[in-house]
Amino acid sequence: MRMYDLIYTKKLGGALSPEQIAFWVKGAADGSIPDEQSSALLMAICWRGMSTEETLALTLVMRDSGKRLDLSSVPGLKVDKHSTGGVGDKTTLILGPIVAACGVPCPMFSGRGLGHTGGTVDKFAAIPGLKVELSEAEFIRSLAETGFANSAQTGNIAPADKKLYALRDVTATVESIPLITASIMSKKLAGGADALVLDVKCGPTAFMKTLEEARGLAQSMVDVGTAHGMQIRALITRMDAPLGWAIGNALEVMESVEILRGEHGDSELAEMSFRLAAEMLIMGGAAQTLPEAQAKVQASIQSGAAIETLRRFVALNGGDVRALDDFSLLPQAGKVVDILADRDGYITAIDGRGLGLLAMELGAGRKNQNDVLDLGVGIRVMAQVGKYVRMGDVVFRVYAKAADNIFSRLYLDTLQLTETAPPITPYLLSHIIQ
Amino acid sequence: MRMYDLIYTKKLGGALSPEQIAFWVKGAADGSIPDEQSSALLMAICWRGMSTEETLALTLVMRDSGKRLDLSSVPGLKVDKHSTGGVGDKTTLILGPIVAACGVPCPMFSGRGLGHTGGTVDKFAAIPGLKVELSEAEFIRSLAETGFANSAQTGNIAPADKKLYALRDVTATVESIPLITASIMSKKLAGGADALVLDVKCGPTAFMKTLEEARGLAQSMVDVGTAHGMQIRALITRMDAPLGWAIGNALEVMESVEILRGEHGDSELAEMSFRLAAEMLIMGGAAQTLPEAQAKVQASIQSGAAIETLRRFVALNGGDVRALDDFSLLPQAGKVVDILADRDGYITAIDGRGLGLLAMELGAGRKNQNDVLDLGVGIRVMAQVGKYVRMGDVVFRVYAKAADNIFSRLYLDTLQLTETAPPITPYLLSHIIQ
Repeated sequence: MRMYDLIYTKKLGGALSPEQIAFWVKGAADGSIPDEQSSALLMAICWRGMSTEETLALTLVMRDSGKRLDLSSVPGLKVDKHSTGGVGDKTTLILGPIVAACGVPCPMFSGRGLGHTGGTVDKFAAIPGLKVELSEAEFIRSLAETGFANSAQTGNIAPADKKLYALRDVTATVESIPLITASIMSKKLAGGADALVLDVKCGPTAFMKTLEEARGLAQSMVDVGTAHGMQIRALITRMDAPLGWAIGNALEVMESVEILRGEHGDSELAEMSFRLAAEMLIMGGAAQTLPEAQAKVQASIQSGAAIETLRRFVALNGGDVRALDDFSLLPQAGKVVDILADRDGYITAIDGRGLGLLAMELGAGRKNQNDVLDLGVGIRVMAQVGKYVRMGDVVFRVYAKAADNIFSRLYLDTLQLTETAPPITPYLLSHIIQ
Repeated sequence: MRMYDLIYTKKLGGALSPEQIAFWVKGAADGSIPDEQSSALLMAICWRGMSTEETLALTLVMRDSGKRLDLSSVPGLKVDKHSTGGVGDKTTLILGPIVAACGVPCPMFSGRGLGHTGGTVDKFAAIPGLKVELSEAEFIRSLAETGFANSAQTGNIAPADKKLYALRDVTATVESIPLITASIMSKKLAGGADALVLDVKCGPTAFMKTLEEARGLAQSMVDVGTAHGMQIRALITRMDAPLGWAIGNALEVMESVEILRGEHGDSELAEMSFRLAAEMLIMGGAAQTLPEAQAKVQASIQSGAAIETLRRFVALNGGDVRALDDFSLLPQAGKVVDILADRDGYITAIDGRGLGLLAMELGAGRKNQNDVLDLGVGIRVMAQVGKYVRMGDVVFRVYAKAADNIFSRLYLDTLQLTETAPPITPYLLSHIIQ
C-alpha cells in the first residue's frame, strides 16, 4: 500500500477503505508516513469529505491506537455527554451529579480550556484538593461508588488523534466535519460509555457558526455512533451570550452548586442542563419519556440527591467538600470591579466570545496550551439578554488579580442595547435522535 | 506573517497576495516553513485554484529563487518553445535549427525523459560527443554563433520549483493547472527568452487527457505570460499515437535529420514542427503572416540552411557532425526484431503511451530518475494511423539490446485495426493567441 495512492484517491473524491485508513493512521502515529503526506491527505479530506463508513473507520483506528477503558465492572448502561464548547458552559458539573443521582452511571472525560472557551477540567480544578486527573482504577471507583466520574483525558487515550490533531492545528485542517467527528468519537468510544448525548453549540461564540454547520456535525456524529451500534442523540443549542451568569472557574463552580441546590431553576443554564440530563436518563433506561425523565431530574434537585452526589464525588476524589457550602474556600480574586451601564436600554445581545477573551486576559483561560490559570478570576454577568438596564446599573462584575487594566469600554462593547424589548429565542435549536 | 493564515485563506477559497506567496516559497525553499504546511497549502491550491495574479506571483518568486539568464548580448527577439511532453516528440530538434536559420535566435532549455515520455536532452545526447549541459557562457556563445542553443537545465534554475515539485510528487499535488503553469513558466522566464510558443499535448498519451483540460492549462500559461508582458501563444495538439515513426533517442535524431533534409515533408511530425516554427518566426518578427512564415520555413529546408544550422550547432558544442550524414555513427542497438501484423485491417489507433512504456523497457526511457539510458534502442513505427496492413506486414521494427524478451503480443496490443478506413483527424486541436 502506498500513501500516495490514498492521497490521490481522496483528491479525486474517491473513498478510502478501512484498510487504507488504518495504514495511514498507524503510519502517521509511528512516523513511517511523513507529515507532509498526512497533511496533504487531511486537506484533501477537508475538500472531499468522508462517508460515514470512512469516518467510522477513522474513528475506530484512532480509538484503538491507545488505551480503551473497560467499564463493564460497573453495572448499568453508562451514559456520557459531549459539548463542542462555549463560554460559561458548566453543564457537566450540573448534569453529571443529577444523572448519577437518578441511577444512571455517568463516566465523563473532559478537556482543558483554550482561547475564549473554558474547559470542564479547569472548573473542577477550582474545588480545592479535587483530583482532576484520575487513574483508571480511581475513575472506575468513582463511577462505581458515586455514579459519577470525571477526569482529564490521559496521554494514552487515542494518541493517534493527538498526533493528527497537532498536524491539523498547524495546517488549517481542523475545520472538517468528518475529522472533527472522528476526533471526538474516537475519544468518546475509548472512554467506554454505552450511550452518548451530544450538545452541539451553534452561534457566533461557538465553533459552528450556522445551524447548517451544526446540524452537519451533529448528524455526522450521530451517524458514526449509530453505525457503531451505540445509542446516541444530539441537541443543537444556541451559543451567543455566555451560558449562565458565571465565566471563570471558581465562579462557575458556585453557579453550578447553586443550581444543584435548587436556585436559578428557571435560568437557561438550568433548563439546558436539565434537558441534557433528561436525555441521558432516557438513554440510560431510567425513564421512558421526556416528561418522566424531567420529573426525575427535578426530584433529584428537590430531594438534595443531586448535590449530595456531587459532595460524594468531591470527597472521594480528595476535594474539600466544605467549599461547596462556603464559597470563600474557593479560589478568590484579589479585586472586584463593577462595570456600569453607560446608557439605558434593553440588552438584546451579549458577545460571549468577547467576554470569553476578556476572561482569558484576566487569567481565567489560556492563550497558550501551557498557560497556568488563575482559578479565582472571572466575570459575573449581572444582566442577561432581555433585561432592561438603566445607566449606572452594574452590568458586569469583574473578579481580577488587580484593578488596573480593567477597561469598562471593552466590557460595555460586548453589549447590544436597544429601546424596545428583544424577542425571546429558545436555547434549543434542533434535536437529532438516531 | 503566519503560514497558517495562508493555508486557511486558500482553504476558504481566498486569494493570496504576492507578499504571502513570496513568504511561502522562500520559506519552503530555505526550510523555515515545514513541509507539512507547504503540502497542505499545495492541496488547498489543487482544490481552490489560483487567479492569474497569484499564478504570476508564484511564477516570479520561483523564477527569482535561482539564476536568471541574461541573453541581452545576443541581438534580436529570442523565441523559445515548450512542449508538455509526449511520445516521439522530437520537434525541438527540427524547429530549433529552422527558426535559427530564418534569423530568429532560439534559446532552449530541455528536460530528460521519465516514464513513457521522452526528453529532448536525451535525444541530443544520442549525437556522439554533443555536450548537452552547457555553461552559461557556452549557451550564449552557441546562441550568438549559430542562432540556436539547447541545454539541460542546471540545478540553479528555479531551485524553489525543484523543492516544491519534489513535495508535489509525493503528495499527489502535481496535477493542478496553476501549479503546473508556475512550474513551467518560472523555468521558461528564467531562461531569458522574449517570446514563447507552447505546444500543449492533449490525449490519452499526454498529461492532459481532454481538450478542456488542455485548453485550461494553455489559457493559464498564456494568461500568466501575457500578464508578465511576454509574447506568448499556444497550440493544442493531439497526442495519442507516437509523433513520427521514431521512438528512441538515436532513431529520433535520424528522423529529425531526415525532415531537415527535406524528407517526409508531408508527415504529421513535419507539419507540426513547421507550424510551431512558423509561429515562432511571427513572434520573432521574421514574418507578419502565417503563409509568409511557412514559406520561410520551407525555404530554410529547401536551401539546406536549416540542416546547416544543426551542423554548426553540433560542431560548436563538441558533437560529431559526420553522424548527421552517416547514421551508423549514431548509437546502435544490438538486435533488430520485426513485429508482424497478425491480421488484415486499417490501423485506426496506436497507443503511444503503451509504445512509450515498451521503449522504456527496452532502455530508451527511464523508469526512475537516475536510470542510465541505452541511446541506440527504440521502436520504428512502420505503419501509421489510417494505413491498411495485411497479415504478415511489418508494423513495428524493434531495436533492442537482445532479441529475447521481445513479445510481439505486447506490441500488437498497441494497435487497433478495423475493416473500414478511419477518418483523418487534424493534429491541431486548438490555438490560443494572447
